[in-house]
Amino acid sequence: MRAELVAVGTELLLGQIVDAHSAFLSRELSQLGIDVFFHTSVGDNHSRLKEVVKRAVSRSELVIFTGGLGPTEDDLTKETVAEVLGVPLVEHPPSVASLEQLFSGKGQTIPTSNYKQAWVFEGGEVFRNRNGTAPGVAVSKNSVTCVLLPGPPTELYPMYHEEVRPFLESIRNTEEVVVSNVLRFFGIGESHLVERLGTLIRDQTNPTIAPLAKEGEVTLRLTAKAGDLQGAQELMAPVKEAILQSVGRFMYGEDDDTLEKLVISALRDQRKKLAVAESCTGGMLAQTLTSVPGSSAGFQGGIVCYTNEVKKEMLGVSPELLETQGAVSMKSALALAEGVRSRLDTDFGLSVTGVAGPDPVEGKPVGLVYLGLSEKGEAPRAYRLDLGGSRQKIQIRAVKQALYTLLERLKKGVAAK
Amino acid sequence: MRAELVAVGTELLLGQIVDAHSAFLSRELSQLGIDVFFHTSVGDNHSRLKEVVKRAVSRSELVIFTGGLGPTEDDLTKETVAEVLGVPLVEHPPSVASLEQLFSGKGQTIPTSNYKQAWVFEGGEVFRNRNGTAPGVAVSKNSVTCVLLPGPPTELYPMYHEEVRPFLESIRNTEEVVVSNVLRFFGIGESHLVERLGTLIRDQTNPTIAPLAKEGEVTLRLTAKAGDLQGAQELMAPVKEAILQSVGRFMYGEDDDTLEKLVISALRDQRKKLAVAESCTGGMLAQTLTSVPGSSAGFQGGIVCYTNEVKKEMLGVSPELLETQGAVSMKSALALAEGVRSRLDTDFGLSVTGVAGPDPVEGKPVGLVYLGLSEKGEAPRAYRLDLGGSRQKIQIRAVKQALYTLLERLKKGVAAK
Repeated sequence: MRAELVAVGTELLLGQIVDAHSAFLSRELSQLGIDVFFHTSVGDNHSRLKEVVKRAVSRSELVIFTGGLGPTEDDLTKETVAEVLGVPLVEHPPSVASLEQLFSGKGQTIPTSNYKQAWVFEGGEVFRNRNGTAPGVAVSKNSVTCVLLPGPPTELYPMYHEEVRPFLESIRNTEEVVVSNVLRFFGIGESHLVERLGTLIRDQTNPTIAPLAKEGEVTLRLTAKAGDLQGAQELMAPVKEAILQSVGRFMYGEDDDTLEKLVISALRDQRKKLAVAESCTGGMLAQTLTSVPGSSAGFQGGIVCYTNEVKKEMLGVSPELLETQGAVSMKSALALAEGVRSRLDTDFGLSVTGVAGPDPVEGKPVGLVYLGLSEKGEAPRAYRLDLGGSRQKIQIRAVKQALYTLLERLKKGVAAK
Repeated sequence: MRAELVAVGTELLLGQIVDAHSAFLSRELSQLGIDVFFHTSVGDNHSRLKEVVKRAVSRSELVIFTGGLGPTEDDLTKETVAEVLGVPLVEHPPSVASLEQLFSGKGQTIPTSNYKQAWVFEGGEVFRNRNGTAPGVAVSKNSVTCVLLPGPPTELYPMYHEEVRPFLESIRNTEEVVVSNVLRFFGIGESHLVERLGTLIRDQTNPTIAPLAKEGEVTLRLTAKAGDLQGAQELMAPVKEAILQSVGRFMYGEDDDTLEKLVISALRDQRKKLAVAESCTGGMLAQTLTSVPGSSAGFQGGIVCYTNEVKKEMLGVSPELLETQGAVSMKSALALAEGVRSRLDTDFGLSVTGVAGPDPVEGKPVGLVYLGLSEKGEAPRAYRLDLGGSRQKIQIRAVKQALYTLLERLKKGVAAK
């Protein structure tokens, strides 16, 4: 199936936002065995949008639009696609009802302009929007299917997973089964990973092996196509095994795993509680842990000890230690981990102290970070990291390394049983 | 000048990388008064690339390509543009010399495939690549200028600033100056804002007014073009004034302002200290504040009191209160704000407690959030929010509303002086 993606919005052409949606949808479509041949971004301009729609429906079997479904007059995607395809728009009573419910819940009346969001293609599909006012819509005519999705990411992503993906599975004209498996690595860079895998990467055909680097992490996405599920899995298995033999010791998880999800579930399984003390990450470690629904099963709480006063008063770090060694030191990391574990009465205490930048602190360089790990009945340990990049990058890498360190510890706990 | 951007590379269509270059170039071109009307991404495929090149040179005066200048057989951009424009490629001795220098510096001979990178458009421009093997090239024919730049960001960005931008300044057929101003609003939705501005938005021409909604915030970008800076500012001033008269009370900042930056700078200016207590936002409020470099000038620290034990033990919230009112209540928000302010000995204590979801807590609905604000020498106040959306959306909105509430309070502090 030949597909293309069209992102609509003048903010894209002004460079105010990056078109991340097309990358997301491309990855998703490749999972479904649908080939994407073009991405186009166009502004909120009727004649140029019309030109783009005409060309897209003339050369592709599937066109997915993002953006331009808002309530204002410059939101034109639905109207323009309807015009080019010659399909009328009709009012969709369930969408009107959800609009009414949404605004009356806020004690507001519906702005007149919002009503147009409840208009949909006659005879087409409607995808419910749980997080906003614009439903997604789709329509097929003359052997092309147009799918129109809202631009805000908090609306697009849930809608895609809940409603659009099943719809695309139902319309793709292939009997091929596409199986994907994402392997997640920590502690090895992309180029080293690719270098170690050598010919395995170079000679890839089926499954394909796509490496992708994210802050401090690398993933490999294996995608196999075959006539049936078993065939795809049989193609996948030997390649995966060869990868694990070569770089398996850096792999921490698969598919939707994240370090924080694995930490929370290991804590829950082992009935252990964690508390964190954060200096240079300023709350990011706690926030990453609590981003996991149900995190209270293992995460007790944290202290953001951004200043030395808080380190002393809330966590009992001795003034002498801070004076002689500094807050950014191996010993302070140990004292913070011990302090937060005892104050919050947990099994584990995890601490981060360092220099996130932009300026050095205590004469210590930007990127120097210490992690502390305290465990009930065990001697505490500390780790030194030398991280590069911007303030935010250093914070993200410190958080991931802290989670990875705890995860490795929790895995050993299980193995020792 | 009508411009468009073409990003070349199959990795874009597979979603392995996001096309950030087009956003970067769009911002740069808008600074030069050059209008960008389309972004296109296409793979390393000769016939589809040719189709894209043909269309681009037929409708634009300037086409900037990124990617596809590498040494391998699937790097086709230069060859395809040369074919479509009918301009021959010729060897460029200085580029051959730098290739030879580069490889001999590594003690290597030049791979045969790299020689094609030293071929350039006959009669065209060459942009030196200090960080890689592919020079940038440009050529003008039939009133269209094509500029071809390398894809790796470490090569593209320096080359743009050092050589391409001056070239574009020399060819743009305008003496226009472009001035932009972003106005930032909180507490009003995009559609209500646009409705209130009515004809101002509908009749916009110069300056243009572009609304953009982000989690809980809306921005308006005003962009004026004129023969000189003063002319652009004179066009801007009355429109900005009319906007402020209509919706000025919702405006919190301009341009690069963020709620957290303004909070930190107000705290610093007023020599006040802030501590935060977070339940449902799990560290996000602290992390947002500490994302501002130099935040320690006003932010003392925080406590992530994710469980009731931490609320009681670290913040002195009474067990009776938690028992009778629940952790998600007006009174608990007050007690948390008072508790964190007194424990961390600060001027302000800000608290967030609520239900971020996905499940209700204490029989209270997802999205119910209370904020508490405690101030030395003043009666504490609490605020009830009813937020919609996913767990992450509720957290982001609660954090922004907390920052906005404190910012409003800090502004009054200044006014009262």
